[in-house]
Amino acid sequence: MTKKKKSLVETVSDEITKYIMDNELQVGDKIPNEFELAEKLNVGRSTVREAIKALVSRNVLEVKRGSGTFISSKAGVADDPLGLELIKDRAKLAQDLLEVRFMIEPEIASIAATKATEEEIERLQHLCDEVEQLILHKKNHRLKDIEFHTEIAKISRNQVVATLIPIIDKSIEIFIELTKSALEQETIETHREIFEAIKNKDPKGAHDAMYLHLVYNRRNLKKADEIDR
Amino acid sequence: MTKKKKSLVETVSDEITKYIMDNELQVGDKIPNEFELAEKLNVGRSTVREAIKALVSRNVLEVKRGSGTFISSKAGVADDPLGLELIKDRAKLAQDLLEVRFMIEPEIASIAATKATEEEIERLQHLCDEVEQLILHKKNHRLKDIEFHTEIAKISRNQVVATLIPIIDKSIEIFIELTKSALEQETIETHREIFEAIKNKDPKGAHDAMYLHLVYNRRNLKKADEIDR
Repeated sequence: MTKKKKSLVETVSDEITKYIMDNELQVGDKIPNEFELAEKLNVGRSTVREAIKALVSRNVLEVKRGSGTFISSKAGVADDPLGLELIKDRAKLAQDLLEVRFMIEPEIASIAATKATEEEIERLQHLCDEVEQLILHKKNHRLKDIEFHTEIAKISRNQVVATLIPIIDKSIEIFIELTKSALEQETIETHREIFEAIKNKDPKGAHDAMYLHLVYNRRNLKKADEIDR
Repeated sequence: MTKKKKSLVETVSDEITKYIMDNELQVGDKIPNEFELAEKLNVGRSTVREAIKALVSRNVLEVKRGSGTFISSKAGVADDPLGLELIKDRAKLAQDLLEVRFMIEPEIASIAATKATEEEIERLQHLCDEVEQLILHKKNHRLKDIEFHTEIAKISRNQVVATLIPIIDKSIEIFIELTKSALEQETIETHREIFEAIKNKDPKGAHDAMYLHLVYNRRNLKKADEIDR
């Protein structure tokens, strides 16, 4: 790939991105085919093909064999966007990730308590119930758990945080097998407390319940770390 | 691209990543060529080529025409990793990004004040001086400014934050033309205060100076926003 070729592909990628935004295309919407794009952007089809590949690898687009190219449900958030897979010291990484949660999530829970609508409270309650049921039935609740935390971030109306929370929370899950000393009772109780505080529009209560939740997580991580040594 | 083909390429990408980690390859190190990798991993050269392309687009590797494939200096951190380019409301996005800085940076400055080594303090002073000189000579100081903040994140020893800060700070720069109401004097003074507090191992002082710095930024953003309307 020569330098010149690369920057043409990049330009075309940018133009496709601009097309998506100008036309306000949403997740699942189809974009024009290679031929139409090549004509529209006045470049060769092979350039369009390379540009689409680049956007697919950036999770902006997804190709469905036989039906076309669509806006990806991943909304352009890269797989492993922070390059965490390349960090070698897993125990330290898990601590760092949790430290970031401590900085962000109590504040976010507090903001969520001032902004939650009836509909959002209902959805949050539903997620809270689902996590609880999974725990009580001894099923894996991690993904639902992340959904619960992501929903709180969404309620805060901060789009950057809503993107960051699942990345950070999932990364912790990937790196640490938390199941070996599960926080089942503590999770049920603190999740419920967080939910109740948000429902009651109690920012300080939501802050403190989230903080307590993270404290349990940090103790658990420390315990897991000690077992490993 | 069929489902099966895709997952083979993914598997090979993962194996190359594993090879990089097992051999503790660093930024700038060369990886084996296509032919050697194909043999090592027992797959076809075209699969290796696709896997390398995927890793290049994820900024794990970079290809230097004529000399080979190397570990990228971007350390696997994607371009626009959070998909921020696809968010349409720029003014709201800038506010959200700044809100995240408020959650992270004062805390990080405080941690940095407890951990900075002599060498790190020297480097931070140098960056502080450079930003100041650029401002005094009416030159663009944004990139150096981001380096100053990133260095503080590095001093905190939190690798996740050290990755996040430049992403967040650069995004703000991209979206808002802050120069139109520049914070020159305030930046010089609060940067100096942050630096002095870290140098004096004063966590609360570093926290407060960073907080003040961000307050000035938020006021500036608000002003820019009002001008736009």
